[in-house]
Amino acid sequence: MNIDKYPSRLLENAVNEFSKLPGIGRKSALRLVLHLLRQDTEQVHAFGKSLIQLRDEIKHCKVCHNISDTELCQICSNPSRNASVICVVENIRDVMSIENTQQFNGLYHVLGGIISPMDGIGPSDLEIDSLVNRVASGEVIEIILALSTTMEGDTTNFYIFRKLKDFEVRISTLARGVSIGDELEYTDEITLGRSLVNRVPYENSVGR
Amino acid sequence: MNIDKYPSRLLENAVNEFSKLPGIGRKSALRLVLHLLRQDTEQVHAFGKSLIQLRDEIKHCKVCHNISDTELCQICSNPSRNASVICVVENIRDVMSIENTQQFNGLYHVLGGIISPMDGIGPSDLEIDSLVNRVASGEVIEIILALSTTMEGDTTNFYIFRKLKDFEVRISTLARGVSIGDELEYTDEITLGRSLVNRVPYENSVGR
Repeated sequence: MNIDKYPSRLLENAVNEFSKLPGIGRKSALRLVLHLLRQDTEQVHAFGKSLIQLRDEIKHCKVCHNISDTELCQICSNPSRNASVICVVENIRDVMSIENTQQFNGLYHVLGGIISPMDGIGPSDLEIDSLVNRVASGEVIEIILALSTTMEGDTTNFYIFRKLKDFEVRISTLARGVSIGDELEYTDEITLGRSLVNRVPYENSVGR
Repeated sequence: MNIDKYPSRLLENAVNEFSKLPGIGRKSALRLVLHLLRQDTEQVHAFGKSLIQLRDEIKHCKVCHNISDTELCQICSNPSRNASVICVVENIRDVMSIENTQQFNGLYHVLGGIISPMDGIGPSDLEIDSLVNRVASGEVIEIILALSTTMEGDTTNFYIFRKLKDFEVRISTLARGVSIGDELEYTDEITLGRSLVNRVPYENSVGR
């Protein structure tokens, strides 16, 4: 079905807007818009306003650049968190993933991307200088690099490592190894090899 | 990944609203909201406003109940369309599908659903009385029933047929048969049987 004749300009507008979203084609967009048309007016108003309000009022934390409702985000302003350890991540979804593990009590630094010459993203497009400034302030003991294990992630790790190597700060990366629940047979050889080289004493391997 | 800790209430609101849509879970909703956050303010305003405006200003045509920007829809108000043939459909998506074939020049009647006792939808929930009134006005020569070939569709067809049988009006349904491009081997036996019973002279079978 080739949908091009809309019975209403208002309907067409809404479908156009929805179909600009990633992964939503015109047929899905129409289905979503017709769903909204069957909802109460208040429900649709709430939807529309939540988007406008989000765009108008959202802030980025001035320290870690995470998304926030306030100048300083909930994590940076929490006095019970360890301000001497900073976990460097690509984006706010990574912050949420790590927070969900409940295994990290330090602060974050959101780069806003990784170095990717193919996409025209260089170091100056990322929040790397502000990371160096945070380290230069002297409070930081350890930087954990938690970027993707891709060529771009490795490049970014190396760039940050070079920028920070003259400071008195420990730089670590996430452990790479066999996923919990994975069978060795199906683990790729690079991961398996790395997990052999970086093997840990059995006593340390317990826990989640 | 179990996402429950959002760094921002505004973000959480927007994700909640998106995840109320059919087929969009919380992870997809977050991805869409983060996409919107990277867009220009005007773009997000346009999105939000298009939804609010749609809900506030959309009308249903007073004759055929199709969605419309005006009291009388584009199709009903078009003098070049044949007002003596009415095609009865379930919803506005069916109107769009039939319009896209460019094979129909009559008017429509959108029932707003089909009779479905399982979902608690009876004849009084649908626009059947207004269809009878259109027929009673005397202008209509033919009613084409274009509902789904399901038990509910058949029930609705039969209900409308009974309501209209005392009027001077021809009642037809869409032809059922082998789809164009389908192989006989894979056509279900009921469709194949029906296409044998309702076979057409070869001269009539040409065209798209």
